[in-house]
This record gives sequence, structure tokens and C-alpha cells, in this order.
Amino acid sequence: MAKDKKFVESITDMEVDFPQWYTDVVIKAELVDYSSVKGCMIIRPYGYAIWELFQKQMDDMFKATGHENVYMPVFIPESLLQKEKDHVEGFAPEVAWVTHGGDQELTERLCVRPTSETLFCDHYKNIIHSYRDLPKLYNQWCNVVRWEKTTRPFLRTTEFLWQEGHTAHATQEESEAETIRMLNVYADFCENILSIPVIKGQKTEKERFAGAKATYTIESLMHDGKALQSGTSHNFGDGFARAFGIQYTDKNNELQYVHQTSWGATTRLIGAIIMVHGDNRGLVLPPKIAPIQVIIVPIAMQKGGVLEKANELKDRLSDFRVKVDDSDKTPGWKFSEYEMKGVPIRLEVGPKDIENNQVVLVRRDTGDKKLVSMDNLEDEVASLLDEIQHNLFVKATERLNAKTSVATDMTEFQDALDDNPGFVKAMWCGDQACEDEIKELTGATSRCIPFEEEHISDTCVCCGKKAKHMVYWAKAY
Amino acid sequence: MAKDKKFVESITDMEVDFPQWYTDVVIKAELVDYSSVKGCMIIRPYGYAIWELFQKQMDDMFKATGHENVYMPVFIPESLLQKEKDHVEGFAPEVAWVTHGGDQELTERLCVRPTSETLFCDHYKNIIHSYRDLPKLYNQWCNVVRWEKTTRPFLRTTEFLWQEGHTAHATQEESEAETIRMLNVYADFCENILSIPVIKGQKTEKERFAGAKATYTIESLMHDGKALQSGTSHNFGDGFARAFGIQYTDKNNELQYVHQTSWGATTRLIGAIIMVHGDNRGLVLPPKIAPIQVIIVPIAMQKGGVLEKANELKDRLSDFRVKVDDSDKTPGWKFSEYEMKGVPIRLEVGPKDIENNQVVLVRRDTGDKKLVSMDNLEDEVASLLDEIQHNLFVKATERLNAKTSVATDMTEFQDALDDNPGFVKAMWCGDQACEDEIKELTGATSRCIPFEEEHISDTCVCCGKKAKHMVYWAKAY
Repeated sequence: MAKDKKFVESITDMEVDFPQWYTDVVIKAELVDYSSVKGCMIIRPYGYAIWELFQKQMDDMFKATGHENVYMPVFIPESLLQKEKDHVEGFAPEVAWVTHGGDQELTERLCVRPTSETLFCDHYKNIIHSYRDLPKLYNQWCNVVRWEKTTRPFLRTTEFLWQEGHTAHATQEESEAETIRMLNVYADFCENILSIPVIKGQKTEKERFAGAKATYTIESLMHDGKALQSGTSHNFGDGFARAFGIQYTDKNNELQYVHQTSWGATTRLIGAIIMVHGDNRGLVLPPKIAPIQVIIVPIAMQKGGVLEKANELKDRLSDFRVKVDDSDKTPGWKFSEYEMKGVPIRLEVGPKDIENNQVVLVRRDTGDKKLVSMDNLEDEVASLLDEIQHNLFVKATERLNAKTSVATDMTEFQDALDDNPGFVKAMWCGDQACEDEIKELTGATSRCIPFEEEHISDTCVCCGKKAKHMVYWAKAY
Repeated sequence: MAKDKKFVESITDMEVDFPQWYTDVVIKAELVDYSSVKGCMIIRPYGYAIWELFQKQMDDMFKATGHENVYMPVFIPESLLQKEKDHVEGFAPEVAWVTHGGDQELTERLCVRPTSETLFCDHYKNIIHSYRDLPKLYNQWCNVVRWEKTTRPFLRTTEFLWQEGHTAHATQEESEAETIRMLNVYADFCENILSIPVIKGQKTEKERFAGAKATYTIESLMHDGKALQSGTSHNFGDGFARAFGIQYTDKNNELQYVHQTSWGATTRLIGAIIMVHGDNRGLVLPPKIAPIQVIIVPIAMQKGGVLEKANELKDRLSDFRVKVDDSDKTPGWKFSEYEMKGVPIRLEVGPKDIENNQVVLVRRDTGDKKLVSMDNLEDEVASLLDEIQHNLFVKATERLNAKTSVATDMTEFQDALDDNPGFVKAMWCGDQACEDEIKELTGATSRCIPFEEEHISDTCVCCGKKAKHMVYWAKAY
């Protein structure tokens, strides 16, 4: 058992060193490996299986809302990137530039896409002519590159995987409705698939996406009290359309500019799953995103009938993602290993269990053990998975609430961050100067102006002038 | 009707100008659009939906054979690419080089992956230690870049999408078995999903993949008699393992090098679907890869009950990919449009049909019309889709056979290519000089030494010396 314990003990406690705990978990749970390519990660089979479940379920939600997938080039010519002024200013400092093809120098540099607004605009200009061509509801799943100085697996990497939705509409009202609709899809996905509660709101002008008229965000809260921007949705109005000349003929035969949106979610959310649900024994996965939902560990495997029964149970549970570990490791080692990997349910079955027509089910989220009859195993597993999925959301919601403070002046603000790191709800006058000062003083940034603002006080937490909005503030990843 | 005809007439006849026919089809069927990025294509929703069906079905076959998906970085540092000598010689001339990140020049150039052997080797070196870690059966779906001078949508593009399998095994026998197994998976996929018959065989040394000990291929034949390499599988032996130092401890506690394979199939196969099954009315899609399997066109749509019935039939056919076109275009226009898009079955339903409790089913592959009772519509559609899937394979096989000639000397060889462009089966002495000369004289290259060689003659078709192998020759894409 000493060896079994070591597997788990070799990870740092999250209370001791949260960043080190995070790194230990991503490596020990075999989600990623470091690569020879600075800032880029290798997503290993277990990590990629999570991403596949993520993609499949989010993609289904996109298709259910009428979106179609496309694929755009990985390169953007420099001249194309420069067409929308704010956009290029935002992205040029962090792109990778291709200057040579084979041994020939290119006449024009190409950047590796950091995001694809410019490519979609270029395409929309070609294919949108009439009001009949609208709306265009496109999405793409792809890799993007942003030159980052400090990187951490999933949270901030030079290359990451994501989806980027890009839509074009006849009117500003329609593009605004789409922007909000997709933010709600993200919130729904986080809450119902990932069991992660989120705050929905609008970014301040300072935190807006380069080129957007309005940026909406969902913000989640990690175990260490830091916020993570978990998905954003942007309304561009007709800004890009004017820069790229994307016009259509309306029903009165008049030329109009289209109104556009974009919205994205990334592999970063795998980091959120780790930091919201994980504990000192490793990863804890919500069942809907778990590559293995039930791990069957045969006990006294060498005894006649045990392995056969384990495989028989696996076959009976074929509605779920189930695996039997019949390797020659000790049961104790296997327990630690699948706890580290966050498998929601461990099913133990040994000779005595078989004799008694029962199995042991162990929950990863609470550690609770339960003896259940083999007769209604399918139902027991189904309801336990539902319960775990729900319980993780409830626990995370309670933590988010417990880690959310209120401040009416900067002393309260700082005390809140020191005593109970997390969100601080406080009023704001609307001036960027106050945002800058709060960041300077506390390290916290404005996360969003929530859709449901509360009245905390009449005056700005920073300058004391008349308040315009309630803002969620936090230190953030 | 003049307008309806125009839709189809605007594509060039394949007998008049095959390359132009191909281009017309990919554009008119809305598979791709050209982009501002030289040599890169935009894959539009209809083309990407084909790719998604392709990915899903091929990925299922990979998983059924025990493979796991991973994701490697998009960049390869120059020093890593150079580790295996033959490999870098093969690829360096055609890679895109990243030299700057933001405004900083990189200390080492990064190439955008043209293929990922070097990255997998680097990772395998980290994670393979013991015989217990073997085999590793990994695959990745991603984009790759090869700097091409002349490009055509799907067939040859600077960036393309593909899957690349990379596996590591304890012995040469196991890596050889894997190489053949995956070639068979490709052949199975082409024949049963895409309805494309293939010739399976081994590449000659000249045509081998850079760094491989053996390359196997499946070769298909296009409508114009040109061959298309449709999937390749490589056995690397321990060549890469020695270059990268990938060793494991065997059961006797001795250090051994691993033996590796790689295998890939690309968006190029969409080009094959077009050029094998297409006709002068556009695309013809095998049902298993068709984004829309049944298009329902309501006739006299304004009449009461027609649209309701069309939607009711759609709901009844929910086991299939079905769409109702209720747009205000004329039925004739819709007929042409979905013929262009290669939809396998058109279902027409109008007031008279409803009166008679029947619908009209029209096959895209033969144009045959059939009146069927509404009562057993589900069965009729299911069996008709099967029949179309099968018929396309039979037709393509007949064409492949008809376009395959035999030659015992170079006069016969040239005559075969002139009179009946396609495969030429001819004997070969094994010398590269003869391969070079045949290419020089006729433009044909050795496609493969088939697994099932026939005896055509005793002597090499080119030099007349003793023959070693039978080879399939052809002009190729």
C-alpha cells in the first residue's frame, strides 16, 4: 500500500501550492505532455478524449441552433489582417509570421491565424449578395496561435484548439440577438455539461475584443478564488462589414452593410474543469465529459469467475463509458490511478460480492461507498451518474457564492480579496481610470457587468462619484 | 425551364475538358471557395459536412482497431525536423517557415508541420520505457501545410486536412502487421463507405515515403483514367527510433529500439469521390457520405396540404439525413440544384401523389424514377440507398477494369495509354532506371506492386531484362 499511496501523495496539496497542484494533476492524470516546441502542449489520449466529448456535445448545440461548420485557411496575409484597424492593433503583437515557403522568401508575410474574423469577412464578401443569403451562421473547429510569453497547459498556450463562430445578419438587432443567444449556449454548456456555474455579463470597453462593439462573457471561479473567462461572444455591428465592404441588397433593392458576430470557446475550459472540480487526490470529472464513467476493478482477480463477472457487468453497462482494468497492478494502485483521472464511479467486484449478488460503487466526488444489488445495476449507475453531475454543480455554485464578496469602498475591496479571494461585487462610475486604478491597487480586473445588476451602493467603489454599473471584479487567469 | 437548365449547362462536359468540369463541380456544388491565401481553400458547409461524415466513419474504424486520438503541436523546430536524415531531405523543400513571433525574430525557425513523425518520436521517447508501454496506437486529425506550386481544390493544396496515425511496437513483425492492417482499413473505407474500388500494393523504392522502409498504398482510378493515391501506410522499422533514441526495456531487461508505422488519408479523397462518381450533371454522392440522403421537393407547394405532407414524410424518414426544400424556387430549379449537389434520392410529392397515397423517388446515380406507396416509404428509401451505394461501387469497378490494360513492351504500353487511358499492368525488372525511363517516355509512374501480382510476361516492359514484379502504372494526380 505504500506504493499505492505514493501515486497520490506525489501531487502537491492545492492549499500548499495551487499552481503546482494544477501542474501535477495535468501531468499525473496524463492529460498533457510538454513538447520540444516552446509554449505548445501535447494533448495525450485521456486529455483528447475529454476534448472529443466537449466538441461533440457543444457541436450538437451549435447545430441545434442552425449553425454549419466550415474550414478556413490557417494563414492570413498581412494585408488582410490589416483591413480592420482595431483588430490588427489587438492581434499583430502576438502572431507568428511565416516568411519563407521552402527556400523562397515570400513577397508578403502570412500570419498563422490568431482568430479568423478577417478570413470570414473576405469569404462573406464573396458569397453574400442579397437579403436571401442572410443570415450566415458559420462555425469552425480549428487550431489557433498566439505568441505568449508565459504559458501553462490549457490555460495559456501558444497554440490552442477552439471553435470560432462567425455569423452575418441583416440588422443590428439580429446580430445582437445572436450574440446573446450564443452566450446563453455557452452558459448552458458550462452549467449542464461541465457542472460549472457561470456569471453572464458584458465586458467593459477596456476588456472588449479588438474590433467589437460589444463583448459578452461567461466568467467562472476556480478553487483558488481566481476567475476564468470561459467563453466570449462579440457583436461587431457593421464595423468589419464597412472595412471589408460586405454589402447585400435588401428587399427594397438598396445596398446595406451586414452586421456580424463572433464567439469562441477553447481547450482552456479543460483547465476550468480541473480547477473547479479537482481535489487533492487529482481530477474530478463531471460524468457527461468523462471518457471513462465507470471503472470496474476486479478484486482477487485470480479467483475463478471474477474477471468473467467483471466483463459481464461491463457488457451490461454498455449504455455508459465503462472500462475493466484487468492489468496486473494491485487494486489499491488502480483505486489511486482512477481517482487521479477523475473517473466518476469505481465499481469493485470480488468473490464475496459475486456470492452475495452485489457490487460496491464508490463515488469519486464524495468518496461514498454503496453496496448495490447486481439486479438493478444499470439503474443504480444511471442515477448515481446523474447525482454526481448535479452534486458537482451544486458544490461549485456554493463555493462561487461563498467566495463572492461585496465592497463599497477600496478598503472593503482589498479586505475581501485578502480574506476571501474570489469575486468582489462593487459599483463603478464607468471610467476606465477607475478600472486601471483598481487593477493597479489590487490586481483585480473587471470581469463583467452582469446581466442582473444588484444595487450595492450609490457611488463608485474607487472614485466615489455617481455609480453607473455593478461590476464583478476578480483576479483572473 | 430555360433558367433551370442553365444551372446545369453552366458546367463544362467532362469529355470536353475534365479539369474544367472538376473545377465547375467543386464551385457549383458549393464544396469550396477560393481564398485570398494562395493555394489554400475554404471548405464550405456542404463540403465540410462531407468531411465530417468521412471523419466520423473513419474514426470509428480506427477506434474499433484500438487506436486513440491525440493532438501534437502545429510547429516543428528546425533541429527536430533534421533528426532523421531522409525525412528532412524529403520535406524541407516544401515547408512553411515561421521566423518571427510578434515583432521578435525567433532564435530557431519553426516549420508548420508537413507531417508529424518527428513530433510523435519526440513524445514517444518521453513516454515509452518498458515493453508494458507498447504498443502505442495513436492517431491525430489535424491540418498540415506543404508548399505547393500548382494547387487544385482537394487534390493538391498548400494546407489540407488529414489524419495521421503514428504507432510504436516492440518488433518489426508487429509494425509490419500494423502497416498492412491499416492499409486494409483504408481499402475497406474506400470500398464500403466511398464506393471507390482500389488496388492495394507496395510502392517501389523510388515512390516510398521519406524515411520509410516500406510504403503501402491504395490506388484508385478517376473518370479521366488518371490514378489517385488514396491512402498510404508506412513501416519505418527502427529507423526513426534509432535517430530519436526511442528504446524500451524488454522482458529480459534488455534495451530494444521500437518499430514504428505511420499512415494517412486526407481531404484529397473528396476529390476522388468527385472524379470517380461525378457526371455531367454534377456531383454524385454515395449515400454513406452524403450530407443530404433524401431531398424532398414539394410539387405545387402552394396547394393545401402539400407542405404539411412533405414535412410529415421528413419526420417519418428521421433515420436518414433528409431535407425538405420549401424555398420559393421552382421545382425544376431545385431538381438541378440537388443533382449538382449529388443528393442520392429526390422525393417528389404533390397533390396527385397525396391523392394516390404515393410519392416519386428519383435516383441520382441512374436517373430512374419510381412510384412507391407511402405505406412502406421507410423500407423503400432504405433499400434504395443501399442499392445506390452498391451500384456506384459496381459501376466504378467496371470502369476500373475496363480502363486497365496489359502491356508486354513499350509500344503496347504507349498504345494502351493513348487508346484507353487508365492503369497499365506490366512487368518490371526492379531497376529505378526503367521507372525513370517509363515516366520520361509516357508520363506514367509506377503506382504499386499489387499484393496479388499476375504474370504478364517474363521480361521487363522497358529494358527486356528478367522481370521481378508486376506493376500497376498510370498517369496520376
